[in-house]
Amino acid sequence: MHAATIHAAGDIRWQEVPDPKITKDTEAIVKVVAGCICGSDLWPYRGENPITAGDTIGHECVGIVEEVGGAVRSFRPGDFVIVPFCHSDNTCAHCRHGFTSVCENLGFTTSGQGEYTLVHEAEGSLVKVDGTPDAGLIPSLLALSDVMPTGWHAAVAAGVTPGSTAVVVGDGAVGLCGVLAASRLGAERIIAMSRHEPRQEIARAFGATDIVVERGKEGAARIADMTDGVGADSVLECVGTDQSMKTALKVARPGGNVGFVGVPHGVELPIRTMFQRNVGLRGGMAPVRAYLPELLELVTSGAINPGLVFDLTLSMPDVAEGYRAMDERRAVKVLLQP
Amino acid sequence: MHAATIHAAGDIRWQEVPDPKITKDTEAIVKVVAGCICGSDLWPYRGENPITAGDTIGHECVGIVEEVGGAVRSFRPGDFVIVPFCHSDNTCAHCRHGFTSVCENLGFTTSGQGEYTLVHEAEGSLVKVDGTPDAGLIPSLLALSDVMPTGWHAAVAAGVTPGSTAVVVGDGAVGLCGVLAASRLGAERIIAMSRHEPRQEIARAFGATDIVVERGKEGAARIADMTDGVGADSVLECVGTDQSMKTALKVARPGGNVGFVGVPHGVELPIRTMFQRNVGLRGGMAPVRAYLPELLELVTSGAINPGLVFDLTLSMPDVAEGYRAMDERRAVKVLLQP
Repeated sequence: MHAATIHAAGDIRWQEVPDPKITKDTEAIVKVVAGCICGSDLWPYRGENPITAGDTIGHECVGIVEEVGGAVRSFRPGDFVIVPFCHSDNTCAHCRHGFTSVCENLGFTTSGQGEYTLVHEAEGSLVKVDGTPDAGLIPSLLALSDVMPTGWHAAVAAGVTPGSTAVVVGDGAVGLCGVLAASRLGAERIIAMSRHEPRQEIARAFGATDIVVERGKEGAARIADMTDGVGADSVLECVGTDQSMKTALKVARPGGNVGFVGVPHGVELPIRTMFQRNVGLRGGMAPVRAYLPELLELVTSGAINPGLVFDLTLSMPDVAEGYRAMDERRAVKVLLQP
Repeated sequence: MHAATIHAAGDIRWQEVPDPKITKDTEAIVKVVAGCICGSDLWPYRGENPITAGDTIGHECVGIVEEVGGAVRSFRPGDFVIVPFCHSDNTCAHCRHGFTSVCENLGFTTSGQGEYTLVHEAEGSLVKVDGTPDAGLIPSLLALSDVMPTGWHAAVAAGVTPGSTAVVVGDGAVGLCGVLAASRLGAERIIAMSRHEPRQEIARAFGATDIVVERGKEGAARIADMTDGVGADSVLECVGTDQSMKTALKVARPGGNVGFVGVPHGVELPIRTMFQRNVGLRGGMAPVRAYLPELLELVTSGAINPGLVFDLTLSMPDVAEGYRAMDERRAVKVLLQP
């Protein structure tokens, strides 16, 4: 098959790679109908994560089941499925507690920007979409493989409750989905930190009531002003840098909570400040599978439209241009079609 | 008046100091009926916190109101009161959210190991006990000024729920009160980490179902065994060192929570591990005043007896011996009578 591969920082190629093969009866192969590029794919693309030259890349996709192993009972070839970026058996103790992203048999999608992808623990991981979804629904279904559940996890981890004030740090696709999640969870005031107009627009469409364009200390001071010096009940940290985390901890009110989903890069937590201000911190990789039934219902009923985060659609062979567009912030998030 | 003073590491003296005076109409003076020594008093005693020679020391006490400022309406001389170690107006935004320990007008008891103590924001801080409490109730009432609400805060911050498994790291008086709190909040299994027999006994009296004597990695391995490799839903970190925090984060199950109340000393948080395991962290100085109505009811009804943590009673002039006894772990917690 063909798939996106990474060879060095900035070097993405669409090329032939070995077809995925089922080697365990718990696996399945999915033919990709749509994949996309994640903000976290930019870490290796920018040389900030180690790279094994020639590896396939991409962990988000939806598609049609091509083949299943003998232990996979609930899915058959032809089923349209959402493929959570992290695969889980959905039966171990951690999964039963709702933390499918820390499953004892954790696996990952590794060729979501390719023609086919292998799913470990298919029975526990995949979620079927009835019938053949309309083309117009595909972007929102694709968003359910990672970005929307990740924004949702940030909001849940930050303890967003009805009537509360939430701040979202980060205006990438995850941050924007965090705005949507905070809105659905009932936050009355949602302050999105964003300096990019197209992103501000999506944020407003997703429920942001206020936009703060300042960053760092200035941004924190602005939010302090806006909240009468109190701070926010819940803060969604959707970047993963030291600055974004410091901002998040600063704009939370004493006794508030920060939910973090940006993979931490160089973050040093100021534990004394957290102690003095009684600000809680909770987050990590989103348990996508656990959130999927609820989120799929919201998408299919039209209650949410997370697919709005895709503002550029390319064909898969042009994947390298997709990375460039996201790296240069010309695109919020790129959808790839085979 | 006379009060305990600190002059250098290891140098506690009972000596004459200026009487506290009301200088703001929100203040009150309380005649101390019982005070005590806190585990956190040992930080300066051991030279691990800066010391101003000659300062009074001690932040826990109960007593009888001696004098009130003009703005104090709900208390009058003769009232028996619990004095939360942190004083709060109970009206600011943070107090209204339940975080009285981050009050905009925060103050502290500074001569709880003396004959009299000044209370800032007396109206918002003090809690009256009806009538004249029996001598036998004094230790438990005294425990409400800090140690019991602090253990309670650890359990609340760790999200203890009915039927859950809790681990308590630290067998000082706060850790023991944490066991009691976890038990009241309905934890089904409570594992206390303690290697000291007299403390193990109190832990069992407070509701511990299991005792783990190993520390650090061995302790964590033991708890992994006991929980079928899953870990605990809630962990109460009641020490404040790097080792105790690392142990706490390790024994929490993926998706679990650590509540921390030990003032952090040299703690470095492993954010990557927290992210990978989705373990939340929350805590800080206990909002004593916010918890007091509920806890006072539990004490006066006989439902809890946190006074059991006091295993040595001395007269105030012997306060230096009290510090030595706690420093050498000959006593769990020392009660001081004028």
